[in-house]
Amino acid sequence: MSEKTKVGVLGATGSVGQKFIQMLENHPYFEVTEVAASERSQGKKYRDAVNWILTSPIPESVAALEVKKCEPSLDCRVVFSGLDASVAGEIETDFARAGYVVVSNSKNHRFDADVPLLIPEVNPDHLGLVKIQPYGKGAIVTNPNCSTIGLVIALKPLVDRFGLDAVNVVTMQAVSGAGYPGVATLDIYDNVVPFIGGEEAKVESEPLKILGTLLKDHIELLPLKISAQCNRVPVIDGHTETVQVSLKRKATKEEIIDAWRTFRSVPQELNLPFAPQPAIYYFDQENYPQPRKHRDLGRGMAVSVGRLRECTLFDWKFVVMSHNTARGAAGGAILCAELMKGKGML
Amino acid sequence: MSEKTKVGVLGATGSVGQKFIQMLENHPYFEVTEVAASERSQGKKYRDAVNWILTSPIPESVAALEVKKCEPSLDCRVVFSGLDASVAGEIETDFARAGYVVVSNSKNHRFDADVPLLIPEVNPDHLGLVKIQPYGKGAIVTNPNCSTIGLVIALKPLVDRFGLDAVNVVTMQAVSGAGYPGVATLDIYDNVVPFIGGEEAKVESEPLKILGTLLKDHIELLPLKISAQCNRVPVIDGHTETVQVSLKRKATKEEIIDAWRTFRSVPQELNLPFAPQPAIYYFDQENYPQPRKHRDLGRGMAVSVGRLRECTLFDWKFVVMSHNTARGAAGGAILCAELMKGKGML
Amino acid sequence: MSEKTKVGVLGATGSVGQKFIQMLENHPYFEVTEVAASERSQGKKYRDAVNWILTSPIPESVAALEVKKCEPSLDCRVVFSGLDASVAGEIETDFARAGYVVVSNSKNHRFDADVPLLIPEVNPDHLGLVKIQPYGKGAIVTNPNCSTIGLVIALKPLVDRFGLDAVNVVTMQAVSGAGYPGVATLDIYDNVVPFIGGEEAKVESEPLKILGTLLKDHIELLPLKISAQCNRVPVIDGHTETVQVSLKRKATKEEIIDAWRTFRSVPQELNLPFAPQPAIYYFDQENYPQPRKHRDLGRGMAVSVGRLRECTLFDWKFVVMSHNTARGAAGGAILCAELMKGKGML
Amino acid sequence: MSEKTKVGVLGATGSVGQKFIQMLENHPYFEVTEVAASERSQGKKYRDAVNWILTSPIPESVAALEVKKCEPSLDCRVVFSGLDASVAGEIETDFARAGYVVVSNSKNHRFDADVPLLIPEVNPDHLGLVKIQPYGKGAIVTNPNCSTIGLVIALKPLVDRFGLDAVNVVTMQAVSGAGYPGVATLDIYDNVVPFIGGEEAKVESEPLKILGTLLKDHIELLPLKISAQCNRVPVIDGHTETVQVSLKRKATKEEIIDAWRTFRSVPQELNLPFAPQPAIYYFDQENYPQPRKHRDLGRGMAVSVGRLRECTLFDWKFVVMSHNTARGAAGGAILCAELMKGKGML
Repeated sequence: MSEKTKVGVLGATGSVGQKFIQMLENHPYFEVTEVAASERSQGKKYRDAVNWILTSPIPESVAALEVKKCEPSLDCRVVFSGLDASVAGEIETDFARAGYVVVSNSKNHRFDADVPLLIPEVNPDHLGLVKIQPYGKGAIVTNPNCSTIGLVIALKPLVDRFGLDAVNVVTMQAVSGAGYPGVATLDIYDNVVPFIGGEEAKVESEPLKILGTLLKDHIELLPLKISAQCNRVPVIDGHTETVQVSLKRKATKEEIIDAWRTFRSVPQELNLPFAPQPAIYYFDQENYPQPRKHRDLGRGMAVSVGRLRECTLFDWKFVVMSHNTARGAAGGAILCAELMKGKGML
Repeated sequence: MSEKTKVGVLGATGSVGQKFIQMLENHPYFEVTEVAASERSQGKKYRDAVNWILTSPIPESVAALEVKKCEPSLDCRVVFSGLDASVAGEIETDFARAGYVVVSNSKNHRFDADVPLLIPEVNPDHLGLVKIQPYGKGAIVTNPNCSTIGLVIALKPLVDRFGLDAVNVVTMQAVSGAGYPGVATLDIYDNVVPFIGGEEAKVESEPLKILGTLLKDHIELLPLKISAQCNRVPVIDGHTETVQVSLKRKATKEEIIDAWRTFRSVPQELNLPFAPQPAIYYFDQENYPQPRKHRDLGRGMAVSVGRLRECTLFDWKFVVMSHNTARGAAGGAILCAELMKGKGML
Repeated sequence: MSEKTKVGVLGATGSVGQKFIQMLENHPYFEVTEVAASERSQGKKYRDAVNWILTSPIPESVAALEVKKCEPSLDCRVVFSGLDASVAGEIETDFARAGYVVVSNSKNHRFDADVPLLIPEVNPDHLGLVKIQPYGKGAIVTNPNCSTIGLVIALKPLVDRFGLDAVNVVTMQAVSGAGYPGVATLDIYDNVVPFIGGEEAKVESEPLKILGTLLKDHIELLPLKISAQCNRVPVIDGHTETVQVSLKRKATKEEIIDAWRTFRSVPQELNLPFAPQPAIYYFDQENYPQPRKHRDLGRGMAVSVGRLRECTLFDWKFVVMSHNTARGAAGGAILCAELMKGKGML
Repeated sequence: MSEKTKVGVLGATGSVGQKFIQMLENHPYFEVTEVAASERSQGKKYRDAVNWILTSPIPESVAALEVKKCEPSLDCRVVFSGLDASVAGEIETDFARAGYVVVSNSKNHRFDADVPLLIPEVNPDHLGLVKIQPYGKGAIVTNPNCSTIGLVIALKPLVDRFGLDAVNVVTMQAVSGAGYPGVATLDIYDNVVPFIGGEEAKVESEPLKILGTLLKDHIELLPLKISAQCNRVPVIDGHTETVQVSLKRKATKEEIIDAWRTFRSVPQELNLPFAPQPAIYYFDQENYPQPRKHRDLGRGMAVSVGRLRECTLFDWKFVVMSHNTARGAAGGAILCAELMKGKGML
């Protein structure tokens, strides 16, 4: 791979935009050549326009870039979109029409019939939808919601081996999921907020498409009942989820743990840069996984699972934890682009 | 009520013991005349023996008491037990045999056939078991686990009006539930611990007895399936629980909310000092209840409920929150003693 | 006192406005008859206009009030101002000209020559300035900055008994001092921010006026050197300050502690409703005072002091803690109005 | 450097011991061949004996080691001591007598006349004391207290260029400084504790030796007045300190910042593996440094400084922040050993 693909970041000064820039530093496939944001920032150097909230310094090469408009006149092949949902839909379509490959973390196009809602380990074949998109060289690919991603990666080996009838999930979500400034300290410190706007609907619907079947021109949803309850807790990064499942076929505890521990998929086989090895950690310790201890495993891309045990109301219950801004947002989207690169689509 | 009943506190220097002493200050029925604790503290003034962790000052009258041995030679009629489970069982039996009324927050006697596991609003009739205890003037009454209490109070109006088939509960529990020093900061700050030793078994079993039927010499358990998942979160006081239920009879949202809002029971009717009025708050706000905002309602004795909505896997889901060391421990036990006083048993 | 004085709250939906309303509930002197706020809220019921962030419920009588414009046509004698500094100056002057007594928590008029910067325990005589104000029945009285108040109350007995040459103070301030939404969780959780805009200048200048001498038409500043360093820490309520002082006259440790413990002033003598008794708590425990344990002493109006010890660079060092939104804002301003009532000025 | 030096860790299961093991993973000079701890752990595999509290996994090679007694029969050349002060003194002397090089994080030997209290960037020449130690091939070298280290590194360039007369420091220290389990959540969450046992005496005395002059057989203390006030705040890692200094010679703001930014010392010149490059970061942002944002700079070995401004009571004031368990404990001690290696003493 002699030359890196040029990429731009839309919404570059926002919290997801910053995470894209942080994670793309020294990336073997991609080079950030453009940063674009809202009018207020345009024309400034990135370092002057951004209120950098991450704990590592701004990558030098990006700090000096001039912030551009979010218009399809950027010098790059791919744009990663961390745009706010209020503007993302139209801007992303404009870029795709103009021939850019758009990999978006926003919700707007997730349920478009011809747009893959992609988790590279789970439904890499859904990239096939891109062929039917009306954008020529351009494309739109979307990354799911942060609390969906960890859940579905943990479910995937179970779907494959045992079939899945029902999923009950309760989330305890980190504040970084709300962006910046996001959650006020007075709202969450020493507190739990048992509500996150729109979140439960996403967790109940997105897995059906992700786990669905690619047909000629759309995805047939997986018939699966999901109930979700979403809570905000005082944690910086890392969504923890208690999960209960009913399986189609009988399984032993050992078989399920084996399904997780041996799970490998296309990103692992292609050895993509951001593909965690392993994709799933299963812990034997009874009080694991925990967000502060395990969110950075696999550079924030691995999913941690633990506490598998029988359930009186479903078949099994267990705990899933994953990094919501790495695996659940910027990192997940970058892995989507890596998959496209790996498959020769870039 | 011309004269107050003398009470002692066993395990008076521990976190539950301190809460007993704090809540009993200026109590209209009871007066703390004795404090007892482990050998290390005996013979000292209470103020010198205790590492007081609460935010109000030590009540003056108790601060000056001498700490005694946990032996049945105390000058009082009732003892409130905040003893550690490793020693509570035998000591409590000794006191009952010696003619004391023991109201215990420890788990040891909760499932003894002749011991009521009492929530005064839920199963006041279970006090009838005391008559068959072999202790003469003495008695043992127990208070359930902190995460059981809020849950069962919220369930009680549903059991009565609609019947109950199944309950699924996920808790997000405060650190004060683990006593003092309890949870290390390095273990819970910016973190969630998805495990609390022994807790899930308690939440799955205790409601069956509490909601059960008093027969001649024991309680017939309510046939009810419960699944519990218990988590520790960085909150000082107040357990939040997401709850899903399947009812025996169809109910509308309005009927269920009405059942909660109109719920009154014996403690409310007897106007007991610690009986919250109302017992249950139902909130219309979509992001309520929250531990920091609502844990002190009704002096920490009320149960807060919100977010009732239909569920794809059960009939309904909602959120319950209650103060784990007030309603869930010391306050709950004091209300048990108030009920006994109100019924002429003291 | 047969009839209560009618009061209005300006900026009633903001965080200071809410605290005014909470603390004025059932006040023996005052009754909230008017709430006023920015255009966005006008015409709504208070309960619908406010995003109530406090942990006790909205007082019923205020919840039903209609939110008015911040214009001097309100039906009340006194207005408490929790207005933002960007608008407070002019609006407060308008109210004073129209004959209202304005008690303000905003900084705008604090250094006007004819306006008292008032702490009722420290400089009650400064109320004399009101006579020279050009407002007839109207008046403007200001409350100092939240981190100034606790400091100056602790310094006052030292100034009186021993004289004061220099003060060095480092603050660790609570997030509620920044209003709502105020400090983002991502900025302060697991963190310290060693900067609060404009705060150090206030702490270095306000004490000079408060501790100054009332002359005919202005306050002569106390000649005193102060250096302040202000930090934000992850605490909800309660500012902690480490203080070092050089005294004019030699003092023993016992004399200084005695000065604090015996300190009484006009509010205590007049037995004003919000006057803490005692005004200052001195703790012997080596790790006290602490914000979570002591912020609510005296209904949040007392100042807590501890750890008095000799200093190698100054004479003495000690720790001061006080509740920043009670004593340091709304409660402090209410005590100012109580003092005016007590002195027959209302 | 063809072969790594074998090292052992004393107190290997404690919090400092764990940090040693984490930071020594893949170290270019050293290889952990022995872990020793108290009786309770002896004979177990390290992975079974330790309650691992760090966020990265236990290094594989150490996980499988057998935990030995803390006796000088270990197969290694150097021992890093994270022993508790109650036992460290004697054990460390035993090891030195037996010919081991002991690099200790414990306080016991810090003020022995023939023992260097070493910060490699500050007083590398103090290693000369080792020659007069009576241990032959053995030696004892000590690392200062965690809140001393960051302070003294920031002071060093000022001492060298401008001379130093007085230092006033107020610390806001992280909970990890208290070890594990250390600070209870109920003691520090939503709180500040203005006291840390023994800490102020260390900060007031250790810099005098570190900044002192090596004479033939002891260190002549630097004549310098220091006053310290130490607080615990709810932060996981990273001590923040507000510092005020009086200099011997006049300096401009630019000169002081230049002194920090250009500071290089022996570890940087020898390019030692843990030597941060630069050693000191000076930030222009008015609200920097912050523990969560800057504690990991230079792998936790750099010192962050900011907010230099004039002071009314001293000459200058500024903020210092450094990682208390990396630079302030294990990492600092490892750098001491690297310096000995670099100077041919190992």
